[in-house]
Amino acid sequence: MITVDVKTGRPYRVYVGENLLKESGSLISKHVDGRVAVISDSHVAPLYLDSLIDSLRLEGIEAVSKVIPAGEKSKNIRIYEELLDFLAQESITRSDAVIALGGGVVGDIAGFTAATYLRGVPYIQIPTSLLAMVDSSVGGKTAIDLPAGKNLAGAFCQPELVICDPSVLSTLPEDIFRDGCAEVIKYGVLEDPDLFAKLTLEGIGFDRVPVITRCIDIKAAYVAEDEYDNGVRRKLNLGHTFGHAIEAVSRFSMTHGQAVAAGMCMVARASYAMGFCKQACPQGIEQCIRSFDLPVNCEMKTDELLPFIAADKKRRGDVISLIVPRTIGNCDIVPVNADDVKDWLEAGM
Amino acid sequence: MITVDVKTGRPYRVYVGENLLKESGSLISKHVDGRVAVISDSHVAPLYLDSLIDSLRLEGIEAVSKVIPAGEKSKNIRIYEELLDFLAQESITRSDAVIALGGGVVGDIAGFTAATYLRGVPYIQIPTSLLAMVDSSVGGKTAIDLPAGKNLAGAFCQPELVICDPSVLSTLPEDIFRDGCAEVIKYGVLEDPDLFAKLTLEGIGFDRVPVITRCIDIKAAYVAEDEYDNGVRRKLNLGHTFGHAIEAVSRFSMTHGQAVAAGMCMVARASYAMGFCKQACPQGIEQCIRSFDLPVNCEMKTDELLPFIAADKKRRGDVISLIVPRTIGNCDIVPVNADDVKDWLEAGM
Repeated sequence: MITVDVKTGRPYRVYVGENLLKESGSLISKHVDGRVAVISDSHVAPLYLDSLIDSLRLEGIEAVSKVIPAGEKSKNIRIYEELLDFLAQESITRSDAVIALGGGVVGDIAGFTAATYLRGVPYIQIPTSLLAMVDSSVGGKTAIDLPAGKNLAGAFCQPELVICDPSVLSTLPEDIFRDGCAEVIKYGVLEDPDLFAKLTLEGIGFDRVPVITRCIDIKAAYVAEDEYDNGVRRKLNLGHTFGHAIEAVSRFSMTHGQAVAAGMCMVARASYAMGFCKQACPQGIEQCIRSFDLPVNCEMKTDELLPFIAADKKRRGDVISLIVPRTIGNCDIVPVNADDVKDWLEAGM
Repeated sequence: MITVDVKTGRPYRVYVGENLLKESGSLISKHVDGRVAVISDSHVAPLYLDSLIDSLRLEGIEAVSKVIPAGEKSKNIRIYEELLDFLAQESITRSDAVIALGGGVVGDIAGFTAATYLRGVPYIQIPTSLLAMVDSSVGGKTAIDLPAGKNLAGAFCQPELVICDPSVLSTLPEDIFRDGCAEVIKYGVLEDPDLFAKLTLEGIGFDRVPVITRCIDIKAAYVAEDEYDNGVRRKLNLGHTFGHAIEAVSRFSMTHGQAVAAGMCMVARASYAMGFCKQACPQGIEQCIRSFDLPVNCEMKTDELLPFIAADKKRRGDVISLIVPRTIGNCDIVPVNADDVKDWLEAGM
């Protein structure tokens, strides 16, 4: 078992290790005195909910559970309301805890529910997708979607602990696993040329535990330096400014990972066109992304994408912060006026 | 104009003064670079919204506004959703701000909306009821109600500033003003025998600006010492553990202030019965509350009240923290086992 400490205002620990789920009860018992409410989804619950609850019961921890329909469509205010009502009906108090057992959707909405129920009860992340392990389960960003866009309501609220068991990835459909690889590649582009080179070489067969741990290391460092996403943490948005717009225009027929992969290539090409990097940088990123069978471009028009980029939730007034690669392992935050985003977008097509 | 500084993690200032609303634009312009979204209700907006917006425009601040139906019934997840959608449609960003213009309901739900929209945008409280001035607008507690109970979902999120103009109280219906007096009396019982004596003597005619300022002073000190309500701030719950249950059993035909007034008298009588104070203490509190024509008891039965006390959101596991007067100006936090609450309740009847 490997541990990564996340040094936020209230620090916490990420545990990474094969077959940790079966031992999760003993890890959780060190953090929870009361009962737990497990929130999971219709894909994950049949596979892993019993195993988690058995492990909790072995430690004498009483558990109740609620299963939501799998998929991004569940990350809405109706399901949020159902989860709040569930916690209230189960008389969960501030000395109890919520456990999010699932991928990014479950982690985000269960986290937001825990962050706001009784103005905040403790919660624990047990991510079951690659995306959730390397990205959404660490860092305390919780959210639901609004009709106007993804993640438009939420809270910063760090979990009590994160339990990351890569052995559960064996049951993850390959396309969902591939989807999470876009975020893994992102960490290489942001911070680690060695990781990036390894990913380009090995593709989807990369060694799970060391790569996942390295990604969590990088994320934890950003989060510790900038818990509330006003500075360096915004670099984690690499590929996402264009990517979120691509997802939205495709009406989510393109997945998050596909959109982020294309978004990363687009912003890298734009970076070259604008004179921020050499041509080898976008070419290298495209090569790596192709080795994962992820897309290097999108078929949307700039005029379709622009309104969604303008609605970027990280926008401050007229300024959008674009994360721009200079070399592999080195990216800049470039403030771009909303009127100039079109030039960047066209340069990246 | 008087100022009170609230020394929370991110400190802020409360401005108190007659006719401040008309000058609010210049106070706000020091805190907001972008646009503002004003949220108000159907009682307050016709009286004061234009005045606020005129004052903002004089400073070149662009304002949009949304009016919700007046009353506690609006503090629900449907209206929360409407407010989130409103901010998204108006393209409010993190460099803009929300203004809550109204009483406790508007302050709580607009505050919760601002605390969670884009994971948090700045907000400003302009309280227009006595209750909101002395209590809910200061301290960063935001909330909505759930079917299971009041304020069961929310966030701790401090405002950017609070503008408190007692001249607007002239249009407040007398019964609503009287309702807020219960919280004013509470501050006397908690911390200030002189304030308490003055209130007993003067009743509802008390001098507005100094009394309101003194209440805000006391609240600001509690909040600064214990921003997240784990310690001394819980004393502000005096009268509320029983009071919230009374409100709920009455299906809100008893107002918050009436319920808190009765709750304070009940817990004071229980305190005497349990040997925590002399008989003069509950007698003094009853006398003060009678001088405001507020109730000193409720007509509910203990068995009706108990389930709602058991669901108290401040409960931790089996322990409920009861705020118990020892003398006027000195109250204790007494941990009471959930099974023993009935004894306290019966002793207070």
